[in-house]
Amino acid sequence: MTPPSLQDNTADVDRLMKAMGRAQPGGKVRIPFSIWSGVPRVLREHHYRVEAVVHWSQGACHLIDLARPAGGVYGIAVDLGTSTVVLRLVDLALPATIAETRFTNPQVAFGTDILTRIHKAGDPQGLETLRKVLIDGLNSRVAGLLDDRGLSPSQVVAASMAGNTAMTHFLLGLPPYWLCREPYIPVVNRPGRLAAQDLGLKLNGRAPVWISPNVGSYFGGDLIAGILASGMHKCTDPCLLVDVGTNAEVVIGNQDWLVACAGAAGPALEGGVTRMGMMAGPGVIDRVRYDRAGRRFHVHTISGKPPVGICGSGLIDLAAELFRAGMIDVRGKFVPGTCGERLIEREGIQSIIVVPAEKSGTGEALTLSQPDIDTLIRSKAAMYTILTTLSRTVNVPLTALRRIYMAGTFGSYIDPRSAVTLGMIPDLPLERYVSLGNTSIEGATMALCSAAAQREAAAIRDRITYLELNVNQEFMNRFNAARFLPHTDRALFPSVPVP
Amino acid sequence: MTPPSLQDNTADVDRLMKAMGRAQPGGKVRIPFSIWSGVPRVLREHHYRVEAVVHWSQGACHLIDLARPAGGVYGIAVDLGTSTVVLRLVDLALPATIAETRFTNPQVAFGTDILTRIHKAGDPQGLETLRKVLIDGLNSRVAGLLDDRGLSPSQVVAASMAGNTAMTHFLLGLPPYWLCREPYIPVVNRPGRLAAQDLGLKLNGRAPVWISPNVGSYFGGDLIAGILASGMHKCTDPCLLVDVGTNAEVVIGNQDWLVACAGAAGPALEGGVTRMGMMAGPGVIDRVRYDRAGRRFHVHTISGKPPVGICGSGLIDLAAELFRAGMIDVRGKFVPGTCGERLIEREGIQSIIVVPAEKSGTGEALTLSQPDIDTLIRSKAAMYTILTTLSRTVNVPLTALRRIYMAGTFGSYIDPRSAVTLGMIPDLPLERYVSLGNTSIEGATMALCSAAAQREAAAIRDRITYLELNVNQEFMNRFNAARFLPHTDRALFPSVPVP
Repeated sequence: MTPPSLQDNTADVDRLMKAMGRAQPGGKVRIPFSIWSGVPRVLREHHYRVEAVVHWSQGACHLIDLARPAGGVYGIAVDLGTSTVVLRLVDLALPATIAETRFTNPQVAFGTDILTRIHKAGDPQGLETLRKVLIDGLNSRVAGLLDDRGLSPSQVVAASMAGNTAMTHFLLGLPPYWLCREPYIPVVNRPGRLAAQDLGLKLNGRAPVWISPNVGSYFGGDLIAGILASGMHKCTDPCLLVDVGTNAEVVIGNQDWLVACAGAAGPALEGGVTRMGMMAGPGVIDRVRYDRAGRRFHVHTISGKPPVGICGSGLIDLAAELFRAGMIDVRGKFVPGTCGERLIEREGIQSIIVVPAEKSGTGEALTLSQPDIDTLIRSKAAMYTILTTLSRTVNVPLTALRRIYMAGTFGSYIDPRSAVTLGMIPDLPLERYVSLGNTSIEGATMALCSAAAQREAAAIRDRITYLELNVNQEFMNRFNAARFLPHTDRALFPSVPVP
Repeated sequence: MTPPSLQDNTADVDRLMKAMGRAQPGGKVRIPFSIWSGVPRVLREHHYRVEAVVHWSQGACHLIDLARPAGGVYGIAVDLGTSTVVLRLVDLALPATIAETRFTNPQVAFGTDILTRIHKAGDPQGLETLRKVLIDGLNSRVAGLLDDRGLSPSQVVAASMAGNTAMTHFLLGLPPYWLCREPYIPVVNRPGRLAAQDLGLKLNGRAPVWISPNVGSYFGGDLIAGILASGMHKCTDPCLLVDVGTNAEVVIGNQDWLVACAGAAGPALEGGVTRMGMMAGPGVIDRVRYDRAGRRFHVHTISGKPPVGICGSGLIDLAAELFRAGMIDVRGKFVPGTCGERLIEREGIQSIIVVPAEKSGTGEALTLSQPDIDTLIRSKAAMYTILTTLSRTVNVPLTALRRIYMAGTFGSYIDPRSAVTLGMIPDLPLERYVSLGNTSIEGATMALCSAAAQREAAAIRDRITYLELNVNQEFMNRFNAARFLPHTDRALFPSVPVP
């Protein structure tokens, strides 16, 4: 800028606005009020030559900070999981993730499942309590990441959040009351961008916080972010995205159309598809192979610690191996002749010893019971029924799917071969299965770094048709047919060997 | 709105936004975050049929409140005077002013003149202290006006403020440091509209507060509001606006051009044009007539109370009458022969008794001294010099002026005939002089009630050429020529009889 003079006494803020307007012809310029009082000092200190941190939104250039911080500018991307919150610190200049941390959602103290928290939010101060523990948790983790690197909160000039619809409501302090009551109406579908200071986030107060949009109570911003991360919305051929975390959601579609449904729609399916999911952690078995020759299980545990339990992906591996080895039959029932002395019975309940006491990290044998397997079978049948129902509704055979993206804290770790063996997912060439990991944090990170990605997410939201799963007789017939390993109709699973 | 259903699960905020968009085709809709959490309850209580309070700004429709308050919607207009703050409560539905109150600017405790306050603002917490007493003062007066009528702050959905540039800076908490230092640069020229909550005003938090723009440190939003109120910016012929309050500012122009200057530019003119101004109040003489036959002064006092002092307009009347009666000569010096026994002398200073002790409200005679008259003559000469200088600069003779608007706490009360007699203002037909009163509050009220008026004010600001008065030899020559009654060049004042 040309410094002011008696001949040109334009005010500092107006001078800056004019200069920004020249740099971005045609665009509107917004200099927020909270920045005004600091403008004269900064302009004079820098002799009217400054580098500004700006944010483009809806055709307007918003000033976030005057004078580029010496230590660089950063952003945070967050996956607001019901159980676990994942937080990334991103160097926006590169852009690249420079740190990632995860922590238990502090709201777990008020209920592990989201429904309990929604009820809790109805108490006096309940919603505010839930909002506050979440924001405090985020602030303390962000502060930790920044302190470790000698960065200041004012250097964090953007943020991006993806979470399910209820979590998004908690974050924004919006009453979730109507989310779980017919006709299941959120307060907002498209939160857009809000200022960090309005949310109580201790970043640069003017940092725009992008909140991933939702399609309804049961299809949240985490899934929109997931679709964005998968890229399925840009594919010519139809693809499928299966996100299995605390809940299970499925999207089918391509560049022209997207149809989604959520597993929570099957409340008649006791346990849904996720009861089998346990929290992963050190010593938890996530992979299992059965050595038929040595007649023993080879287990892989997280962090290589002695085994203490089993998580979802390990359970699917284990059940598939039991089936392949003939230790469970097509109904999932133990076959005593094949199981041999591994099969034990206590109080009328049969279990199989997976890890003997002497090799276990708990000092006791790790076992899998008949009821555990029964639950797993109901879950896998529910999943397969949802997939086939969706496929029939949109009239795209499962075999026509180009890619099946497996996502979510649990879904990503499933071995497709084992899941196909159980008849949980369709019998397709394994290369069509792609494990994407946490697509919610991936999508949030993309949106953090690119306004185009934010627009893409908005367009995805607007294109999705949400299918309310109707648990009718036909659905139940399909579900019952899927309660066999791999399926009543063996022709659907040609690659699965008859045990 | 159509209430939501399983077939149409659009969120409440999005549904409302859509409905507002339908009502205002082509316009963008903004529903501020702070309103979101209340939307579901209000929509359901009103069965999805609500009247909203909205504000149009820059092509977008901003929601201020959902559900029109039963008791109506109101606005406040404020003239932020250095000495006195005037506040109006306006019923926006009519629109009409329903109450007006005025109070001493609470900042007077930190200095009666603006320069002292600007220095005070440099102390630690000084600016915040000045801002806070002003905002607190406004809040308490607004609360009083509302309480009297059983209204709630949330019903005040708009505000409008006009003040000089320093007062505007104090209101917004902006450092005034550079206002009084060459090259006299404000922090902001065009504050536009800010949210009440961001200023700490206890109105509806989302109420837009329009702040009148300024042209520079010495030509503030009060004067822009004043031009707006005068309408001179829409006249074909050139007009003049003279605003005399704590300071004196002059604008000349018409629908095509506007040139302004401020009396403060004449710091060489000891006392400027306003030293003669005293605060008006009960018992203060504001009109004087001299009864030549009865050889006595008829004085009119404010509220009809016994006289205790004299204010600016009274002083001008008095001096004009003294001149007409031959009691002072063309140099403003007492003529002992004409004054007679009214003329007294104490400690070498001559004074004339205006009100004898027995008729005075103070118990002592009210007198006017020779130094008082000398000061008045310097002030009137300064004013006339500013007017002629401005007239020459823009090449419009004073006789070509269609209207001369007299405004300001002091200027409005001046009797043009007396001021012409003294040679303070040009000798034009008296009907060309129009007394406008407080144009700042008038303009603020217009801007409160009309977005078009706000745009007009912005256009006025952009059209003004501010003239820095150059106190050079030519100016001083003109000033010295004006230090006679009515002027050295009697031909300029043909209507003033030779005494």
